Amino acid sequence: MKELDKITPLEKDFSKWYTDVVKQGNLIAYGPLKGTLVFKPNAYGIWEIIQKELNEYFKEYGVQNVYLPLLIPERLFNKEKEHIEGFNPELATITKVGDADLDEKVFIRPTSEVLFADLFKNSIESYKDLPIIYNQWANVVRWEKTTNPFLRSREFLWQEGHTCHNNAMEARQYTRSMISLYAKFMKNFLAIPVIIGKKTPKEKFAGACTTYTVEAMMKDGRALQSGTSHYLAQNFSKTFDISFKNENNDREFVYQTSWGVSTRLLGAIIMTHGDNRGIIIPPRVAPVQIDILELFGNKNEKVKKVANDLKKQLSRTFRVRLDDTDKNPGFKASNSEIQGTPLRIEVGPRDLENNQVTIVRRDTLEKIVLPVDKVKQTVKQLLVDIHNNLYMQAKYRLNENTVVVLNYDEFKNQIKQQKFVLAPFCCHDEQEELIKEQTGATTRCIPKTVIKPTKNAPCITCNRVTKRFVVFARAY
Amino acid sequence: MKELDKITPLEKDFSKWYTDVVKQGNLIAYGPLKGTLVFKPNAYGIWEIIQKELNEYFKEYGVQNVYLPLLIPERLFNKEKEHIEGFNPELATITKVGDADLDEKVFIRPTSEVLFADLFKNSIESYKDLPIIYNQWANVVRWEKTTNPFLRSREFLWQEGHTCHNNAMEARQYTRSMISLYAKFMKNFLAIPVIIGKKTPKEKFAGACTTYTVEAMMKDGRALQSGTSHYLAQNFSKTFDISFKNENNDREFVYQTSWGVSTRLLGAIIMTHGDNRGIIIPPRVAPVQIDILELFGNKNEKVKKVANDLKKQLSRTFRVRLDDTDKNPGFKASNSEIQGTPLRIEVGPRDLENNQVTIVRRDTLEKIVLPVDKVKQTVKQLLVDIHNNLYMQAKYRLNENTVVVLNYDEFKNQIKQQKFVLAPFCCHDEQEELIKEQTGATTRCIPKTVIKPTKNAPCITCNRVTKRFVVFARAY
Repeated sequence: MKELDKITPLEKDFSKWYTDVVKQGNLIAYGPLKGTLVFKPNAYGIWEIIQKELNEYFKEYGVQNVYLPLLIPERLFNKEKEHIEGFNPELATITKVGDADLDEKVFIRPTSEVLFADLFKNSIESYKDLPIIYNQWANVVRWEKTTNPFLRSREFLWQEGHTCHNNAMEARQYTRSMISLYAKFMKNFLAIPVIIGKKTPKEKFAGACTTYTVEAMMKDGRALQSGTSHYLAQNFSKTFDISFKNENNDREFVYQTSWGVSTRLLGAIIMTHGDNRGIIIPPRVAPVQIDILELFGNKNEKVKKVANDLKKQLSRTFRVRLDDTDKNPGFKASNSEIQGTPLRIEVGPRDLENNQVTIVRRDTLEKIVLPVDKVKQTVKQLLVDIHNNLYMQAKYRLNENTVVVLNYDEFKNQIKQQKFVLAPFCCHDEQEELIKEQTGATTRCIPKTVIKPTKNAPCITCNRVTKRFVVFARAY
Repeated sequence: MKELDKITPLEKDFSKWYTDVVKQGNLIAYGPLKGTLVFKPNAYGIWEIIQKELNEYFKEYGVQNVYLPLLIPERLFNKEKEHIEGFNPELATITKVGDADLDEKVFIRPTSEVLFADLFKNSIESYKDLPIIYNQWANVVRWEKTTNPFLRSREFLWQEGHTCHNNAMEARQYTRSMISLYAKFMKNFLAIPVIIGKKTPKEKFAGACTTYTVEAMMKDGRALQSGTSHYLAQNFSKTFDISFKNENNDREFVYQTSWGVSTRLLGAIIMTHGDNRGIIIPPRVAPVQIDILELFGNKNEKVKKVANDLKKQLSRTFRVRLDDTDKNPGFKASNSEIQGTPLRIEVGPRDLENNQVTIVRRDTLEKIVLPVDKVKQTVKQLLVDIHNNLYMQAKYRLNENTVVVLNYDEFKNQIKQQKFVLAPFCCHDEQEELIKEQTGATTRCIPKTVIKPTKNAPCITCNRVTKRFVVFARAY
């Protein structure tokens, strides 16, 4: 039986804390190849619920799920120049099968724009075939140099949506709809508030015209890009010759979008809500929402009966797990906490003398002693409360740690304090590069709706007056 | 707008018929790399429902879903000799990243036994940690020489279960439970009857002690291996050092199983139920169970209203799609048929004069004219009827085309007629090889329960008396 090891306090060493949490929480194991991960049941369970719930959201937008190949022949990938340049250094390349050499290199997809382009080219004839709104859930490989579980690994899981439209306005609107959908999903299911905005030209996706992003703030103040939505315009359709006959019977290139979220979201959950006892999983995506613990159940028939009755009753509405092992009560409680189960119900002989059980909240650690017949309705309300509490805490933290600055000295000072900094900025590539070198901060986004202190202000680096206010932060 | 092309009659050319069906039914497109596939919405939709329903079945057996890496370093794969020999010629091998050579070759998983072994080795300490019952839904790559959509492609999707037990009996029992589960699933959801049995030593999985299989009969009489379950004994646990402390505090190697079904099941559906109009999807796994067609809806308000009301009403219980385009009625009907939707409801102005609509069954093409307010209850019953009819037809075909033979001449004659042949056979590798060369037939399985004509009989090749009766067939 594996022992529960200690977790480093997050105040002491945030990155060590993170590593401890993912290893201890039944979340990951390291794969045999450096930089790869095993998603254990607690992590994969969250991802399965994210898939299910996002699919429901997608349905409202007419999304159809498909699955495209893992492997991309070199000639196809090389067609879009900017795109290949953005990905080439990280491409895992197959050159052999068994002992035989291949005639042409084959890449493992780092993303699937070119595969979708190839599919669309052969599927579209007239404006009546549009829009096409496809999404796939898939694994992708990017050979990163430094890796970190969920945040940056050589293989990760994601969804990537790819759409074709017969006009630019509809495609642009779709791009924005999807980034709003991600923000709403993160709020409603992950209890994570985000800042929505556009990426600067330097930070946008290789091949996109515009990239929108949702940026979340982790407990150490660093930013995590949590989802993106790209307006590709006709960049890929012109290169790959994806055209349609419009209503005037003229050929025209389609307008495209792509958008995705990945298993990074698991990292976002951990670093937004976790504490020194481990991960806290927001109730709506928790694979186990309620742990029922039998305390001394092997010596007490009534404990066994009540625990099993509760399991049966609550399983109709909630995701419930029963711990009926002979481990000691302290171990059982720690085990539930370290795995981040939102609620646990302790069924013990002493409480049962008064026909009561104890419910413990994972977020506040508050204990509630209550009669057995009140459990169901209480649990329902508590799960809602936990979600709201997690969200409000994260929202408060985001607001408290986002500051406006109007000059570069103050900028450096605030970045040093791990704040999100909103500053007037011209968005020149070379200045962005300089700021990154000097402070470690990158532009996160040009937020859409944000309260600016003034309409215009001098850029923090070049002093030219601009109306652009940009969010900077150190980021994962 | 893409035209619906013709489908080659299946009596004329079965393999051409199959290719036409998969291309026309919104099922696949070919990937840019030879032997790879795009799963279009109609195919991927079936797979998603299979995933959901199999997950429900798995839950009863304590299965937890996980996800392991795509990539396997050479040193790990090479540990199990029989296993590597079985897979090596088909291994896609990564030797480069970007322009840099790797120090060690990396393989794309053709299956994940060695990855699970590596995980288990580090997860298990005592008998209290057992059993471990994991499953993953994943893509795998095997570089096949000849490919055929769904049946044999260079990448396919599957689930692979991997378990560890503290005793052989439990592991053996689990192996058998999973093959029974597959048979039950195929009957209840895919309307496909199967023969359950053991593989001969020659046909068993590389590294397994025993392999069980479920074999289905396609409409051309050929067999399709549709699912397998392997008892691995301690083969991998000894090689990979996966041990536990038993109740006497002695170290012992774990007993393992693995089991899987793949997107081959989509091929099984097509070739078991399809007809000259295309695929017929069994109702319980149909992404769209009911197509509602507006006939002349753009010219008739009542048609629009009734079609939309039906959509709304039926969507609460069934998976429904509304065709409200201005295409002509014939095209709409063909489009629904070619995609294999089990039922379509035609809402047209003439029927509506009597407040009626027409329901058409995809399996029998029977038309039922009935009042609008009777639709819901009728549809419910019809979907059950279609499932049962598909199953009974397939079951009848399997029974009619399975024959017993007692000598090799008759064997050759029956195999030529594309039958499943049950024959007394010793299971010597070289005789199996010979039969394959001479007749194209392979051993499918040694069936568990089957009515044998006699208890013992002389082997069809060596004449030694045996009690083993083996199913032979030409196979996909």
